[in-house]
Amino acid sequence: MQLDRIEAALSGFVPETDKLYKTVTDAMRYSLLNGGKRVRAVLTLEFCKLCGGTEEQGMPFACAVEMIHAYSLIHDDLPCMDNDDMRRGKPSNHKVFGENYALLAGDGLLTKAFETALSGEAFRVVGVERAAKAASILAVCAGEHGMVGGQCIDLETENKNVSAEVLKGKDTGKTANLIMAACMMGCIAAGAEDKLIEAAKAYALNIGLAFQIRDDILDVTGNAAELGKNIGIDAQNGRCTYVSLLGLDKAQALVNGYTENALEALKVFEGDTTYLREFAVQLAARTK
Amino acid sequence: MQLDRIEAALSGFVPETDKLYKTVTDAMRYSLLNGGKRVRAVLTLEFCKLCGGTEEQGMPFACAVEMIHAYSLIHDDLPCMDNDDMRRGKPSNHKVFGENYALLAGDGLLTKAFETALSGEAFRVVGVERAAKAASILAVCAGEHGMVGGQCIDLETENKNVSAEVLKGKDTGKTANLIMAACMMGCIAAGAEDKLIEAAKAYALNIGLAFQIRDDILDVTGNAAELGKNIGIDAQNGRCTYVSLLGLDKAQALVNGYTENALEALKVFEGDTTYLREFAVQLAARTK
Repeated sequence: MQLDRIEAALSGFVPETDKLYKTVTDAMRYSLLNGGKRVRAVLTLEFCKLCGGTEEQGMPFACAVEMIHAYSLIHDDLPCMDNDDMRRGKPSNHKVFGENYALLAGDGLLTKAFETALSGEAFRVVGVERAAKAASILAVCAGEHGMVGGQCIDLETENKNVSAEVLKGKDTGKTANLIMAACMMGCIAAGAEDKLIEAAKAYALNIGLAFQIRDDILDVTGNAAELGKNIGIDAQNGRCTYVSLLGLDKAQALVNGYTENALEALKVFEGDTTYLREFAVQLAARTK
Repeated sequence: MQLDRIEAALSGFVPETDKLYKTVTDAMRYSLLNGGKRVRAVLTLEFCKLCGGTEEQGMPFACAVEMIHAYSLIHDDLPCMDNDDMRRGKPSNHKVFGENYALLAGDGLLTKAFETALSGEAFRVVGVERAAKAASILAVCAGEHGMVGGQCIDLETENKNVSAEVLKGKDTGKTANLIMAACMMGCIAAGAEDKLIEAAKAYALNIGLAFQIRDDILDVTGNAAELGKNIGIDAQNGRCTYVSLLGLDKAQALVNGYTENALEALKVFEGDTTYLREFAVQLAARTK
């Protein structure tokens, strides 16, 4: 199973240790190795294969993007941010290890993402040039002008009425950017030409935006049991979303439009895009 | 002046913005652009020139290492870590911007370090291969097995009596590793052979350890006004140091030994090592 291989590769890049800093390694592994859906890693591997690469070539970058995702959740759950005690049905990192170790575990995973994308293994399977280009994209998408910027916009806009344009900026930063990195790195690992990398970026941006708006919709129409989380949270927190701004129908129309864009972007690829097309379509209609 | 050029380059890699995430950029610039001594950046540039490179070639890596240093101080000052309100005579980042933005500013600077080392500018001045190798070293030295690991050992050993070996592990992680990255990246930027990179690493490890032990000594013998910080803090906090473990004389003997090792490591370089030798010697005798 691909998911098992991703899990094994992640564990291999952050092996257990009996060194003096064992606690931070344990904390990193606690949040990294939780058997999630690995959406981002799977996208990296899919685009890598679509562009003629192998799973082995995509794997270091698939792992790197999951490390960035894991760090962002740890720091997001901290008391000074969202102050969440639970994450995917388990106590959040700082509830288990304490805030200080959780902070370090996040820093460790963020750093480890670049160590992994620039590891001997990455250099071996794709060469130094591709690894450097992929890691560079990851840094841009994860940083100030990408995910970190999106988190900042999220803080800025809390309890404020904002425009659809601002919401789009927030969703692009917080959600779409890391998906963009995942898809683009897959292409780069396979040595794809720029035209394909740009198409992967467009696909990723559009499914990222569709995903986030569908999330806003499910917060109103979803089933808490099916979703595995409480609903009505946005309204309760007075959070401005596409639903509060446009209503349910227009919000879903936006989701559908972004999904169309994503499918359109795939047309430039010559290989089999069945998985990526189905993934986009399912995302737009998901109920959980 | 070299320091002015470092400051200008740092500012150029994190320019002001009027984007929606302006606050995190401002917070990053607040801690990054404080006109410090830039010890790590200067070491990168010195080793780059010593190995036949130019200041321009070393600059992206000199900036990257200063970004890692700046992020580590922001996260270190947070209430869940050292809870320091002041840093170099100014309010610490979270006192100015709040804990949430300070957390993001640290994450942003950590990510920006890799964006910088893998930037178009870095690729232009040293080529993709050297940039990738330098960024890879930075990730290893800054991460779980380097600086983050050292921070973890620091937490583990608080208020505990530990062996000299454990202290050395902590100092190597917390202090020496980033100096190692600085010196090694300078050599790599210049395209130096492995023998020289290893010599730079040895120099850095030894001055890093000497620096930290001298710090412990000054906490006992130093002059608060001259140092610009309170003394007696280690004893007050029941912190185990080389001084509490070995006494002042043996601690200074260790400093002198490490300094000798550092000078020895420089012998393999053919160019002018005057600056680096004087730097090591002054470090061992510094009173502030």
